[in-house]
Amino acid sequence: MADTWLTTLITDTPQAGFELAITLSRRGVKYTQPDAAVRDRLRTEYAENADSLTAASQVIAINFQTIAAANNYWRK
Amino acid sequence: MADTWLTTLITDTPQAGFELAITLSRRGVKYTQPDAAVRDRLRTEYAENADSLTAASQVIAINFQTIAAANNYWRK
Amino acid sequence: MADTWLTTLITDTPQAGFELAITLSRRGVKYTQPDAAVRDRLRTEYAENADSLTAASQVIAINFQTIAAANNYWRK
Amino acid sequence: MADTWLTTLITDTPQAGFELAITLSRRGVKYTQPDAAVRDRLRTEYAENADSLTAASQVIAINFQTIAAANNYWRK
Amino acid sequence: MADTWLTTLITDTPQAGFELAITLSRRGVKYTQPDAAVRDRLRTEYAENADSLTAASQVIAINFQTIAAANNYWRK
Amino acid sequence: MADTWLTTLITDTPQAGFELAITLSRRGVKYTQPDAAVRDRLRTEYAENADSLTAASQVIAINFQTIAAANNYWRK
Repeated sequence: MADTWLTTLITDTPQAGFELAITLSRRGVKYTQPDAAVRDRLRTEYAENADSLTAASQVIAINFQTIAAANNYWRK
Repeated sequence: MADTWLTTLITDTPQAGFELAITLSRRGVKYTQPDAAVRDRLRTEYAENADSLTAASQVIAINFQTIAAANNYWRK
Repeated sequence: MADTWLTTLITDTPQAGFELAITLSRRGVKYTQPDAAVRDRLRTEYAENADSLTAASQVIAINFQTIAAANNYWRK
Repeated sequence: MADTWLTTLITDTPQAGFELAITLSRRGVKYTQPDAAVRDRLRTEYAENADSLTAASQVIAINFQTIAAANNYWRK
Repeated sequence: MADTWLTTLITDTPQAGFELAITLSRRGVKYTQPDAAVRDRLRTEYAENADSLTAASQVIAINFQTIAAANNYWRK
Repeated sequence: MADTWLTTLITDTPQAGFELAITLSRRGVKYTQPDAAVRDRLRTEYAENADSLTAASQVIAINFQTIAAANNYWRK
């Protein structure tokens, strides 16, 4: 992938960090399946499956651990 | 999602931290499946499945790791 | 849930910490499936399934990581 | 469980730590399924299943993370 | 494997770190299945399966945790 | 197991650390299934299954986290 999509793990707020965790999770999929049409088709399937949604939430949780640590947990 | 739902990882007690971990876990699902009606239907299914419940508990455990670290484990 | 069930992550011994990890794992299930009768029925099923037991042990292991860190690993 | 089985996470060697990680993993199962006869029967099944063995190895790996950190990775 | 493929975990940017995490994830597969033709065949299958893609993204997330820590999260 | 197979987590290079992570992952299986003939048979099966290979790669990733931390990420 030639595009630049990740230049920092630092975010202003925990919520922005959580949303970055979602981006990382989706990028992990995109590197394996680069075809957007295939990903869109698959998403409509797994978005109706409880276990698939839990699994997706788990990947986000793992990436959020990384981002939260990078931001020192946004402690004041 | 335009709403603000996560402004801090700091909580007064470990229990409040655990409940925040649940919120994060559900938000991870919500970002993938924004339709509340679909999520409600799926929940009635997986809440009757032991493995689905274990998987949900695991995502909570992972998010709780993050929140507990953010709070220095609520050490006195 | 209105009851108070988690006021500290600190325990006297590693074994007490491990048992607290079990409590956290079960609470993660209870928040998703509050009906005790349903949980009891499901438990008799998954307690006879090797993969379900391994999955349960994994959630305990993740929660034990958190509790062990909170207790500085009970180092003397 | 009334017996005392875990008084310290400290071990002399990494290998002893790895074996303690196995003990923790099995205890996680034992708390959920206390009947030894059932566990023995289930073990003969999952010991012949590649995915079950990988899952068991994963729980050990997670517990080993905890024990290795407790021992400061047995650095000299 | 006789070739040298991993001499450092340090990367210039988070994105390069994420791509290294992908490399580690694929190497983990390659050590178990060294035959490139088999891996290529399997990839075409799992790249069409949503749960397989989520699982692949999860391994990347775990490896990215390691690499991000190694790089002190690329903090300025 | 009477043999000594793990005396240190320290390795000269990240790649040697990754290979040690593979050793740990396989040992986790070996403790549960000590019969080499059974393990060999199972390996030929799961080495042809994409999800099994991803799961194996995940266990390696978890063990690599431990070993990388032990080696301070091989920072110069």
